[in-house]
Parts: sequence; C-alpha cells; structure tokens
Amino acid sequence: MSIITIERKILAKNDEMAEMNRELFNREKIFAFNLVSSPGSGKTSILERTLEHLNGKIRIAVIEGDVQTDFDAQRVAKYNVPVVQIVTRGGCHLDALLVQDALKKISLQNIQILIIENVGNLVCPANYDLGEAMKVVIVSTTEGDDKPLKYPGMFLNASALIINKIDLLPYVNCNLNQLKQNALQINPKLRTFETSCTIVTGISEWCDWIVKHIQK
Amino acid sequence: MSIITIERKILAKNDEMAEMNRELFNREKIFAFNLVSSPGSGKTSILERTLEHLNGKIRIAVIEGDVQTDFDAQRVAKYNVPVVQIVTRGGCHLDALLVQDALKKISLQNIQILIIENVGNLVCPANYDLGEAMKVVIVSTTEGDDKPLKYPGMFLNASALIINKIDLLPYVNCNLNQLKQNALQINPKLRTFETSCTIVTGISEWCDWIVKHIQK
Repeated sequence: MSIITIERKILAKNDEMAEMNRELFNREKIFAFNLVSSPGSGKTSILERTLEHLNGKIRIAVIEGDVQTDFDAQRVAKYNVPVVQIVTRGGCHLDALLVQDALKKISLQNIQILIIENVGNLVCPANYDLGEAMKVVIVSTTEGDDKPLKYPGMFLNASALIINKIDLLPYVNCNLNQLKQNALQINPKLRTFETSCTIVTGISEWCDWIVKHIQK
Repeated sequence: MSIITIERKILAKNDEMAEMNRELFNREKIFAFNLVSSPGSGKTSILERTLEHLNGKIRIAVIEGDVQTDFDAQRVAKYNVPVVQIVTRGGCHLDALLVQDALKKISLQNIQILIIENVGNLVCPANYDLGEAMKVVIVSTTEGDDKPLKYPGMFLNASALIINKIDLLPYVNCNLNQLKQNALQINPKLRTFETSCTIVTGISEWCDWIVKHIQK
C-alpha cells in the first residue's frame, strides 16, 4: 500500500512539473507533442521525414529521449534544428523534470513546434505527462494488428496514431483495417495516419495536420 | 534518495521470490527461460513454432504475461500445453511474485521446459529476475540494427538472442552483421539465432539448443 502511495506522489510531482512546462509552451506559443512507440516502430524516421517536409517553413526544435546513446540526436542534427539528447541510463520513460532540464538548453524564441521523442516503450511513457499538447503514438505494421488491444494505455492517452511501414503490408501478418478498428475501439477520438518513411507516403498529410496546431 | 532506496527494496524482495522460484525449478528439474522483447518482435510466434517443433517430444508449460487481453494464452492453448495467462493491467513487466502465483495454477509434475513470455518491453523486464535459468531476447530485423546499443540492459542480461523476421531483410533498413556485432559488443557471450516464423527457418537450431538445457 505504501508503494502505491509513493507512486502517486511521484506522478503528482511529475504533473506539477508538466504543468510548468505547459505554461512555458503556452507563453512562448509553442505546439509541443510527445512521440511514443515501441523500439523500432520508426519514431526517428517519422521525425526526419517531418523535418525534411517542413524544413525552412516551420521553426522546429527537438528533444530526444533514449535509454543509451545519442544516435537519434545525431540523426536529427543533420536537419539544422536545435536538438537536445536526454539519456535516461536505463530509465524507461521521460518525465517532466527531464524535459524541463532539456528545455533550459534550447533557445525557445521563435520556435513553433517542439517534438519530444520519448524512449521506445509502449507501456511506461503512457503515464507521464511532459506538459505536451498531445501524445502521438506510432505503431508499425510489422508489429501486428493486435497491439492497441494488448497495450491500451498508450492508445487511450494519445490524440493521434501513425500507422508506419505500410510498404511492408504485403509481407507481414497485419490487417490494416483490423489495426485501425482495434485502435478506435480503445480510443474513438484517435486521428489516424498511414505512413511509410521508405517509400515516403502519408508524410504531407501528417505534416499538414500538425501545422494546423501551431499556436497563433 | 528515498525513492532509490525503495526501488532497491522492491528489487531485493523480488530477488528473494525469484530464488524461491529457482529452487522450485531445480527441485522439479524444470528448465525455465524468460522470453523478452519489444512488442511485436515475435515472442508468441517463436513460442508457437517451438511448441510445434517439440510437440510430443518434450513436455512444455507456458506462462504468458500481457498488459491486457489473453490473446497469447489462447494462441498457445491450441498446442495442448498447460498455459497460464498473467494480465498485469498496466504493469510494464512480470515479477517473481506474479510468476509464483501463476505456478500454483500449473501442474509442474513431469514438465521439462517452462517458457515464460514476458510483457512486450525492451527496458523494464531486464531488471526483474523471475527465477529463470536464462533470459532470451528477441529482436526483429524490422526494428533496425541499432537496438542492442540503444537498449543495452536487456542484451547484457540475456544468454541468447533470437534475430527474428529475417525473411523481411530485403525490405528493411537493417544490416544483419551490424546487428549481431552490436549485440556482441554489449554481451560477447550471447548465443545468437536467426529465425523467421513466416518461412519457418532457424527454429530447429534454436530448439536443439534449448533441449540441451533440459535438466537430467
């Protein structure tokens, strides 16, 4: 019972920090979203295609979260956007305080979109508010169509679902309609996108949608 | 600081329970292994192909761990083996106590191999000993070749690595040699296997290897 109480206290403390981040984003008119998925679903690839598509048109900053290595920050840095890498050293999710520390290392002036790429984990990051406007969950077709039902928390807490790697549909055991149906059964409000970063499809539709969320 | 202490206490308690499970496995001469991976890497598919291959030859029991649903237990039950489903209801890993409770629901007499399929998560299950003889980590080619470096804990704590979905290599951005090299850089003792559950390859090599671990 004491463990549950402590966990609640940790989450309450996190929510307080998240609220501070949220106030900062609103003050600076930044649309911040939290990109979550299993390892290898394509978070960084979607991020790269997004930066490519919006390059020169929208001012974007990125916070990268990884258990280990700064590979993702290196990939993102090629697009000439401000990027900070958080290495959790074993930690299974980002929290609002880690994001708050990372924000101190970015000049937020004139930034319109902040993309926070979380640790690859379809379970734990669902419970941690970072102060973002929304969570965007990615699932790849190679993971099968049952994931929303097996990991409902993440789909329930997300505003959008990107179904990635649709170029691999002919080769994998995944029914696209079933996958969407399963996701919408958990969260009927999910906005869904279908993408491939290899054959580059669905990226402009996704980018048009996020651009609409930029704060005026 | 107090949080760290509590975490240590939880892990110490878990280790105590794990030791009890280990003693039970040794007493009953059961080779138990803990199957871990990201969601959708193919844990249940590898399990199904393993049950198919060893059917009638080796007496196997299965414990399934999932955040939600009993889909995996339903899939496994078709092979006429004793199976218990643990639903963690949001929990990101199995622990030794959950396994201990599940063990009470299986008749262990004459069981030679116990396969524990963990929750799909490449981070948290690395830290929890369930009393198993070894962890076996699965990574699929669709996740890319950098995962061992980005999620080192799991590869460090595993005895074997199954590289699954090798039939998809022509379609994905994954260098098989690089993936193996990255895994062996983290843990040079890893025994590696290359499998596909779709074109059914590598399964007999993997099964021959686990059969060698059966306690006499």
